[in-house]
Amino acid sequence: MLLPFVVSVYYHEPVSAIAFAQSVLITLIIGGILVFFLSKGAKPGFYAREGLVVTGICWIVMSAFGAIPFVLNKDIPSYVDAFFEMASGFTTTGSSIIPNVETMTHGTLFWRSFSNWIGGMGVLVFLLAIMPGAGKENGFTLHILRAESPGPSVGKIVPRMRATAVILYCMYLVITLLNIVFLMIGGMPLFEAVCHAFSTAGTGGYGVKADSFAGYSPYIQNVTTVFMLLFGVNFSIYYIIILKKIKDVLRDEEVRLYVFTVLASSLLIGWNIRSMYPTMEETLRTSFFQVASMITTTGFATADFDAWPVFSKSMLLLLMMIGACAGSTGGGMKCARVLILVKSLIMNIKRNIHPRTVHVLKINDRVISEDVIVNTHAYFSAYVIITAALTVLLSLDGFSVETNLSAAFCTFNNIGPGLGSVGPTCNFAGYSDFSKILLSLAMITGRLEIFPILSLFSRSTWKKT
Amino acid sequence: MLLPFVVSVYYHEPVSAIAFAQSVLITLIIGGILVFFLSKGAKPGFYAREGLVVTGICWIVMSAFGAIPFVLNKDIPSYVDAFFEMASGFTTTGSSIIPNVETMTHGTLFWRSFSNWIGGMGVLVFLLAIMPGAGKENGFTLHILRAESPGPSVGKIVPRMRATAVILYCMYLVITLLNIVFLMIGGMPLFEAVCHAFSTAGTGGYGVKADSFAGYSPYIQNVTTVFMLLFGVNFSIYYIIILKKIKDVLRDEEVRLYVFTVLASSLLIGWNIRSMYPTMEETLRTSFFQVASMITTTGFATADFDAWPVFSKSMLLLLMMIGACAGSTGGGMKCARVLILVKSLIMNIKRNIHPRTVHVLKINDRVISEDVIVNTHAYFSAYVIITAALTVLLSLDGFSVETNLSAAFCTFNNIGPGLGSVGPTCNFAGYSDFSKILLSLAMITGRLEIFPILSLFSRSTWKKT
Repeated sequence: MLLPFVVSVYYHEPVSAIAFAQSVLITLIIGGILVFFLSKGAKPGFYAREGLVVTGICWIVMSAFGAIPFVLNKDIPSYVDAFFEMASGFTTTGSSIIPNVETMTHGTLFWRSFSNWIGGMGVLVFLLAIMPGAGKENGFTLHILRAESPGPSVGKIVPRMRATAVILYCMYLVITLLNIVFLMIGGMPLFEAVCHAFSTAGTGGYGVKADSFAGYSPYIQNVTTVFMLLFGVNFSIYYIIILKKIKDVLRDEEVRLYVFTVLASSLLIGWNIRSMYPTMEETLRTSFFQVASMITTTGFATADFDAWPVFSKSMLLLLMMIGACAGSTGGGMKCARVLILVKSLIMNIKRNIHPRTVHVLKINDRVISEDVIVNTHAYFSAYVIITAALTVLLSLDGFSVETNLSAAFCTFNNIGPGLGSVGPTCNFAGYSDFSKILLSLAMITGRLEIFPILSLFSRSTWKKT
Repeated sequence: MLLPFVVSVYYHEPVSAIAFAQSVLITLIIGGILVFFLSKGAKPGFYAREGLVVTGICWIVMSAFGAIPFVLNKDIPSYVDAFFEMASGFTTTGSSIIPNVETMTHGTLFWRSFSNWIGGMGVLVFLLAIMPGAGKENGFTLHILRAESPGPSVGKIVPRMRATAVILYCMYLVITLLNIVFLMIGGMPLFEAVCHAFSTAGTGGYGVKADSFAGYSPYIQNVTTVFMLLFGVNFSIYYIIILKKIKDVLRDEEVRLYVFTVLASSLLIGWNIRSMYPTMEETLRTSFFQVASMITTTGFATADFDAWPVFSKSMLLLLMMIGACAGSTGGGMKCARVLILVKSLIMNIKRNIHPRTVHVLKINDRVISEDVIVNTHAYFSAYVIITAALTVLLSLDGFSVETNLSAAFCTFNNIGPGLGSVGPTCNFAGYSDFSKILLSLAMITGRLEIFPILSLFSRSTWKKT
C-alpha cells in the first residue's frame, strides 16, 4: 500500500494519501499482533496441507485488508463493495462495482491495477521472491508455489524453488516494462500506461477509462492484444526461449492448442461480425482484441460484445471456459487441462473398445501419471458443481438465468465482464451484499484453483496428525 | 409397428393403417436384404467393441426407420422432423416438433408413446428378452445390455444375462399395467391411459393433450407424480424388494440421495412459488409434479414453469442435470454418477491434504474401483464438452444463448421441454434441419450414455484385430 500512498501524494490527493497511510498502519499493527502471539506455539514442518491452508486463508485476509483504503478515502463507501472490488483485483477477475471509474482518485486506480499485477503472478510467491528471510525451507516455498500458481502442475525451472520464484518475477517485470514502453510510444500518458500494463500483465482487466479500450487508437489496441496474448502463455516458455531452445517451444502441445484456438476463433468471430464494422481491418482488430481478452480472461473491451450475434457470444463464452495456458497469469480452466481432459476422454473410448490393451496419456511425449489425470478430473467436477451451485444461489436476487450463470462463470473463471445484466457495459453493483460476498469467494476459489479454498472446509485439514 | 397398425385399424384410420403396413414391409424387406447379404461374411466373436458399435448403429437406424410411418400418413410431412420426433421418442426425450398433438391420428400418438416405453428399458434388451434365438451367447447379451442400459455399471440380477433381461422387462410391464389401472380409476379413457402410462414408464413425456397434464384432475396428476418417481428408481431395487431385502433398499445411498433431492427441491420450489397458486395443496401438487417430471427427465408439465421465479427455474435445471437413478428409464447424469463425482472430489481434497495416506471411495460399503471412477469422470468431461459444442453449433440459428444452452441440455439429457423459446409451451419446430439432425444425434448420444456413439467416430473401432 506504500506505492499507492506515493501516487496519492504525487497527485495531491490528501484524502487518499491519508487513507493509504492509515491502512498501512492498521495492517501493520494487526499483522504485528498476530505474529507476536501466534508464532510462539508454531511447530516446525511445512507440508502440502499447510501450503493449502496458508494460501487459502492469506488470499481472503489480503482482500479483506486491501479493501480498507477504498472505504477510508470514500471512493467505495460500502465495505462489502470494497471487498468485492479487491478480491476481484487480486484474483485478476476485473469485475467491478464502480459505476464510473473516471471519478476515482489516482490512488484508487493505481491500487486496483497494482492488485491485478501482483495477484496475477501470486502474492505469496512475490513475498517469497523479495523477502530475505523466506524460502530457507525448500518445502515451504514449494508448497506455497504449488498452491498459488495456476495450472495442473508446477515444474521447477531451476532446482531451488526460491530461485524459480525470482526468475519468474524478473521475466514478469521485464515484459510489463516493455508493455509500458510500447503503450507510451502510442501516446498514452505514463500513469495510464502503467495502470494498463499492470492490468494486462495480471490479465485482470481493471482499466482507468469508462469505455475500457474503445477510445484508444488502433495501435494501442493492437499492442494490448499482443501483450494480453503474451501474458497468457506459460512463463516457463520464456525461460526456455532465453535458453535458446526454440524448437521445444514450437513443439509444445499446450502452446500449439492456445495459438490455434486464438487464430481460429478470431477468424470465425470476425466472419460472423463482418457486417457490423466498416472495414476488414476494424473487424479483425476488434475480433482479435476480444478473443485475446476473453481467452486470457483479462476482460478489456473495445466493443459491446453483448450486442454481437449469438454465435460470437457463444464462442466468447467457450473461450472464457478454456482460458489461457497453465503457469500464466490467466484464468479459466487452462489449455493444459483441456488437453488432459480431451486426451483422457479419447483414451477412455479406446479402453472401452479394447478393454485388454494398455493405454497411456502422453503430452509433449511425456506420460502423464494417473494421479495428475484424476486430479484434473476432480478439478473439473468441482468446477462444474461450483458453477451450478453458485448459479442457483445467485438466482435468489431475481436476475435472469443467463445473467446469473454468466456472473458465476465470469467471477469463478476470473474473467470480469459477463453477458446480460453483467455485460461489458454494466457491472455487478445490482447484486445483494450476500451475492457479492459469494462472488468474491468464488473469485478467490477460482484463482487458487479450488483446492486451497475447499480444503479449508474439510475436516481432515483440521485434524491433528 | 404392428401394434400402431392394429390401433389405426381399430380407430378406422385407413391412411395411418396403410402407412404402418407399408412401413412394416419396407423395414422387413431392407432388413431381410441386409441379413441375407451381410451375415455371410460374419465372423464369430462378440466383445465390448461389437456391443458398442451394434448399439450405436442400431439406435440411429431404428429412428430412421421408425420415422417412415409419420411421413407416409402425412402427420409429419418433413422427414427430418419425423426423424427428430422418433429419435426423441426412442431416447425418451419427449421433445416434439408437432405444434398441436391433438390433431394427430391415434396411430401416430400410440406409436410415439410406445417408442417412449420400448426405448426406456432398451430396444435391444427387449429383443433379447423376447427373441427365442437370441442370447445363446452370454457375451452377446452382456455387451448389448452394458452398452444400452443407463448408469455407470450394470449388475447382473441373476447369473444368466438373458434371464436378467426377462426379469427386468416383466417388472417394467407389471408397473406399467398398474399405472394404467390407477389412471383409469381416475376416469381417464383407456387409450389415453395406455399412452400416458407408456410415456411415464419410459420417462419420455410424449402426451396426447396440448396442455400436457394441466387439464387433468389433481388425482391423475398425483398418480403420475408417484409413477414418474417410481420409474426413476433403479429397477434392480424392485427385484431386491421382491426378495424381501427391504433393509438393503433403505440403506442404498443412491436411493437415499434421490429421495432426499426430490423432497428438498419440491419443498424449496413450493416455498418459492407459493404466491402464484391459491392453495397450499395446489402449490405442493404442482411443485412435486414438476420436480418428479424434471429429475426423472420425463418432461410432462402441469404449469408453464418458464414463467416461474428464477430460483425455481435454476433448481429445475439442476434437477435435469442430476437425473434419475442408474438402471432406471430416466435420463440425465444419474444420481449414482453424482455420488461418485462428489465422493471422488472429497477423496481428492483429502489426497491433496494428506498425500501419503491411502484413500478409497466407497458406495454402499463397497469399494468403487479406479476404473469406474475414471470412466465416470470421462463421461462427465464428454457430457460438458458435448453440451458446450452443441450450444455453439446451435447458435448459428440465431436464438438466444439461454434457448440454445437449454435446447442442448434438454435433448442431450433426454428431458424434453426446455426454457426460453423451447420452453414447456413451445417446441423445437423453429430450428433449422441441420440443428434438428444435430439435436437428434445428441438425444441418441445422451440416451446411450455417450460411448457407443463416440466409439463410432474412433479409428480404433474400425481397425482389424
